[in-house]
Amino acid sequence: MIAILKHGTTPAQMEHLVAWLKHMDLDVHISQGREVTILGLIGDTSRVDMELLKSLEMVETVKRVSEPYKQANRKFHPNDTIIQAGSARIGGGYFSLIAGPCSVESEEQIIEVAKAVKASGATILRGGAFKPRTSPYAFQGMKGEGIQLLVKAKQATGLPIVTEIMNISTLDLFADVDIIQVGARNMQNFDLLKELGKTKKPILLKRGLANTLQELLMSAEYIMSEGNDQVILCERGIRTFETATRNTLDLSAVPVLHNLTHLPVVVDPSHATGKAHLVEPMACAATAAGADGIMIEVHNNPSCALCDGAQSLTPPQFDDLARKVRKLREVMA
Amino acid sequence: MIAILKHGTTPAQMEHLVAWLKHMDLDVHISQGREVTILGLIGDTSRVDMELLKSLEMVETVKRVSEPYKQANRKFHPNDTIIQAGSARIGGGYFSLIAGPCSVESEEQIIEVAKAVKASGATILRGGAFKPRTSPYAFQGMKGEGIQLLVKAKQATGLPIVTEIMNISTLDLFADVDIIQVGARNMQNFDLLKELGKTKKPILLKRGLANTLQELLMSAEYIMSEGNDQVILCERGIRTFETATRNTLDLSAVPVLHNLTHLPVVVDPSHATGKAHLVEPMACAATAAGADGIMIEVHNNPSCALCDGAQSLTPPQFDDLARKVRKLREVMA
Amino acid sequence: MIAILKHGTTPAQMEHLVAWLKHMDLDVHISQGREVTILGLIGDTSRVDMELLKSLEMVETVKRVSEPYKQANRKFHPNDTIIQAGSARIGGGYFSLIAGPCSVESEEQIIEVAKAVKASGATILRGGAFKPRTSPYAFQGMKGEGIQLLVKAKQATGLPIVTEIMNISTLDLFADVDIIQVGARNMQNFDLLKELGKTKKPILLKRGLANTLQELLMSAEYIMSEGNDQVILCERGIRTFETATRNTLDLSAVPVLHNLTHLPVVVDPSHATGKAHLVEPMACAATAAGADGIMIEVHNNPSCALCDGAQSLTPPQFDDLARKVRKLREVMA
Amino acid sequence: MIAILKHGTTPAQMEHLVAWLKHMDLDVHISQGREVTILGLIGDTSRVDMELLKSLEMVETVKRVSEPYKQANRKFHPNDTIIQAGSARIGGGYFSLIAGPCSVESEEQIIEVAKAVKASGATILRGGAFKPRTSPYAFQGMKGEGIQLLVKAKQATGLPIVTEIMNISTLDLFADVDIIQVGARNMQNFDLLKELGKTKKPILLKRGLANTLQELLMSAEYIMSEGNDQVILCERGIRTFETATRNTLDLSAVPVLHNLTHLPVVVDPSHATGKAHLVEPMACAATAAGADGIMIEVHNNPSCALCDGAQSLTPPQFDDLARKVRKLREVMA
Repeated sequence: MIAILKHGTTPAQMEHLVAWLKHMDLDVHISQGREVTILGLIGDTSRVDMELLKSLEMVETVKRVSEPYKQANRKFHPNDTIIQAGSARIGGGYFSLIAGPCSVESEEQIIEVAKAVKASGATILRGGAFKPRTSPYAFQGMKGEGIQLLVKAKQATGLPIVTEIMNISTLDLFADVDIIQVGARNMQNFDLLKELGKTKKPILLKRGLANTLQELLMSAEYIMSEGNDQVILCERGIRTFETATRNTLDLSAVPVLHNLTHLPVVVDPSHATGKAHLVEPMACAATAAGADGIMIEVHNNPSCALCDGAQSLTPPQFDDLARKVRKLREVMA
Repeated sequence: MIAILKHGTTPAQMEHLVAWLKHMDLDVHISQGREVTILGLIGDTSRVDMELLKSLEMVETVKRVSEPYKQANRKFHPNDTIIQAGSARIGGGYFSLIAGPCSVESEEQIIEVAKAVKASGATILRGGAFKPRTSPYAFQGMKGEGIQLLVKAKQATGLPIVTEIMNISTLDLFADVDIIQVGARNMQNFDLLKELGKTKKPILLKRGLANTLQELLMSAEYIMSEGNDQVILCERGIRTFETATRNTLDLSAVPVLHNLTHLPVVVDPSHATGKAHLVEPMACAATAAGADGIMIEVHNNPSCALCDGAQSLTPPQFDDLARKVRKLREVMA
Repeated sequence: MIAILKHGTTPAQMEHLVAWLKHMDLDVHISQGREVTILGLIGDTSRVDMELLKSLEMVETVKRVSEPYKQANRKFHPNDTIIQAGSARIGGGYFSLIAGPCSVESEEQIIEVAKAVKASGATILRGGAFKPRTSPYAFQGMKGEGIQLLVKAKQATGLPIVTEIMNISTLDLFADVDIIQVGARNMQNFDLLKELGKTKKPILLKRGLANTLQELLMSAEYIMSEGNDQVILCERGIRTFETATRNTLDLSAVPVLHNLTHLPVVVDPSHATGKAHLVEPMACAATAAGADGIMIEVHNNPSCALCDGAQSLTPPQFDDLARKVRKLREVMA
Repeated sequence: MIAILKHGTTPAQMEHLVAWLKHMDLDVHISQGREVTILGLIGDTSRVDMELLKSLEMVETVKRVSEPYKQANRKFHPNDTIIQAGSARIGGGYFSLIAGPCSVESEEQIIEVAKAVKASGATILRGGAFKPRTSPYAFQGMKGEGIQLLVKAKQATGLPIVTEIMNISTLDLFADVDIIQVGARNMQNFDLLKELGKTKKPILLKRGLANTLQELLMSAEYIMSEGNDQVILCERGIRTFETATRNTLDLSAVPVLHNLTHLPVVVDPSHATGKAHLVEPMACAATAAGADGIMIEVHNNPSCALCDGAQSLTPPQFDDLARKVRKLREVMA
């Protein structure tokens, strides 16, 4: 870590600062320049509070040279992590096609969708049981019952399942779930992350709507620092001023993350765009950007024609998408 | 709620949609125009999933006419809510000066700061015991012990105390806390909000870094819908492209929220700006914008001269600020 | 256009409003509901100032049903516009590979790069002559002389050329330029747009860093409304809170724009990401998203080894990229 | 300027880089550390292209130690600049109350408003003659005729006038204008800035919707570097995800800018918020934050009752605001 001190810092101020840094078991290498003084901090700087350091008046700027994440860091773990979840593998060249309905609604629905997406090549079934909703008055999901229906769909198709947890007190309900999802709104619910770090299950960690990629990696680090190194990162759009799409899908996240970390990176174009007709082009784009998987909402509701065209794809639309994605993957190999 | 359907929607599609809406106990008033068809939805539309409705291809746009929050809504509760927390009142003309250190560090520290800020006119003592930190390797606060020290400072000064909760499983530790704070990162931790809604304690709810004011009100509604109507809203900066300040303090939030809700609104300029020399001007600005209170970080660390100038104010700096804020309040009365 | 009036609007207020709207030659269709009153405005609403209408206290919301752009609108011009620029075609299935150095530096440099990118399959040569720079003290480009060198490179290779204009007073210098570029910072320099609308040259219009896609289309409309319908839209990244990339490349812009307009859409991943190693994955992603072309910075500076790895690609790196993009295009056909 | 090189940079790479930097007349001071190598660049670094330097693969980070603006920099010009515009002074303790209609509409209107705002204490009259509009079909202002009417209002009241320029070719029309305004969309129209730098008139420079404060200062530097040091900076809201207000007024800009520059800083709450009822609280907040002036839209249209409540204030509303602002100024003195 490098701290640059402002011109005019007094020797007494600097002495105080250096003493404080040494108190944290850091070696401090001082390089006095004409305009500025540069402190090189050597040792375990992951404990240093950068925000506090930056906020000191004498400090011009602080720059981490070594990243604050260790276990998620590709530098210390050059090979891609490959995550095994039931029959599916994600990362290190294994591409995952994750598909399923936004919410689990009934046994019939989830099994029918599961069969359909499997037939089109999906490798993992998704479906919401606990639903984080902006409004307390909105449908909050089928909860435990929803998970049981997902497990039935898994038994019927062999597809591993992924579903979201909102509260660690419900962890027991996830015994047969293959991948536990942490939603965007909980990306910095640090207590939840720590508890999931104590499990042995793969965790699919969604990027928060206003979180930087470094913060995403720090949240992965929370899980990994407790002993669970099975983390899948998921880009699902960030908040910007643009309103033509629900969120702005930040596909540069894929190569940036691949550079910084060995963890697999998947992309969710359904939630990011919020419109069915944008899902296929963005799924193709994510694939071409090198994503290790994509998550697609698929519904199957023949009695409800009105839903055609919503954010979810129909099984035939998903079949088309899966075919295109496969062709792109072949070309990129 | 108004839904505008696109030109070209077929009668069959519209019939399906209307049937679906009526299924949710809504009356649907259809107004067929030349270019568009407008559906007026009458009844309890707070249960309608706007995102789903918007994502339908046939739907041009959806607009709530009545806000999705009820208990937080000024329309149904025109008078300002006044919250009593120990000896302090907030809202409805009562202004709160909340001050204290970022983290509780020792009994000596917290009592000294508490006495200092009280002498300058603070009405509530703040101090972090559970600290949400981006890094798992950073100091996470004194936790339960920190709360006990806050309680001692309360006994020594009579100041009511506010401190942050991160996990509902620690609720018992907050028995003697006067106001429970929900941090920005947990603003949409809906399960935590619901549980806090079952307590009788005032909740200070901080706006998330990427959350709209309407989402802040919906999170307040989560607490209120469980029976706890003692919610204080707190603006503490949002994330934008600007890097000159840590976050961008959105002071327009104050009059906007006062218009929409009867709940008190306080402002935290210390976290928003991240620099001590910006705290006083932004505290004054918040006061002039009509805030019901301000939250200021104050430390007292004579042995650590280096901290002077960081985000926290020293007691004499706070004393100056408090005097200015009082003068502004008098003028505005 | 639909205007929804608030509950409580008096008949007198509404009468005033309706009179004002009729004064603008609009028909007003009033639909009085229980909670709200809806005004349907029929006629040429492109002249109505939505911001003013919205700012009226009695108005709940205003929604355009017909887009405010006409000539750029796919509804009135369903077929893709194909733009011919020298030997190159863009749009309607014709894909353009635009490449060249950030700045024109010398005759030798630009001709060498032009030959190299042509050999790799580039169809258009780019190069900056007038350079918009944040600092008045930075190099502002070779200006007119730079354009002359671009013209020499065009003569040497047959590649059509694109370069940026910053000031309409320099238009004469662009006589032999095939496509005139309007930079992101000038996207809403309306006087410049109007003047370019009076020329017969194709215009490559870059999206501003904080501009919505609708604003981009309105700026295209400025050019088209003066008689020049040869506009190419360019996504080059928007400003967000994320700092891992220089800007956030918004690839959803490609399918969104294709839906709204018949104009071709190209993507510039070099400026958006600011790092060479991100250019290829994002160029592939843009191609897979359906872009009509990509713009890539390529330099050729054997005497300056330090530049390897900067935002610009070397000719061999560009050759690799071009090959991948071609393969993706084949698969997508 | 400090450049930190990555671990693993070869001596040859470093040699190339150092040679390149020396070529720009910079002294380079090398400090080789264990983890990184730090280059201190000494000399006129304002010509160094930071973006290019940053984009080199071997460069970890680049940090300016001295700001890239000189003439706008408080370090080299510690005393506040006081700008004289007709009878008005702005900056250095002189507070300006700038008021007037959004657009000049008629002689009667502008003179009536001018008299009204003068009676309430306004020191400068504002009014739009050239109007930058998102749509080519919207009213673009009365142009030269509008300026003539402003001049008549100036003659009638003695108030100096400020109005916006969009195109340098219209400069002659501004001969009797006291302050020329550059709108947010033209903040980085560098050619316009340079031409205005050759005039002797005070320039009111509005911050762009997606521009950082440093970029605002660099744009001021463009004007000043041509010889005109009469620049007034104006905060008018930035673009964020929040939609409750038209833009997000960034009031922290006031103390941040006061710290960095000697130029006066005014605030425009009318355009930022877009709603009349938010103008007064935000004008008060801007005043308390230490702004050197505020710009307020005031209309006077007795025949058009519908306009009451729009973004513009009525003369009586403005009179209230002016009184409050004056009281706040007294308290802050």
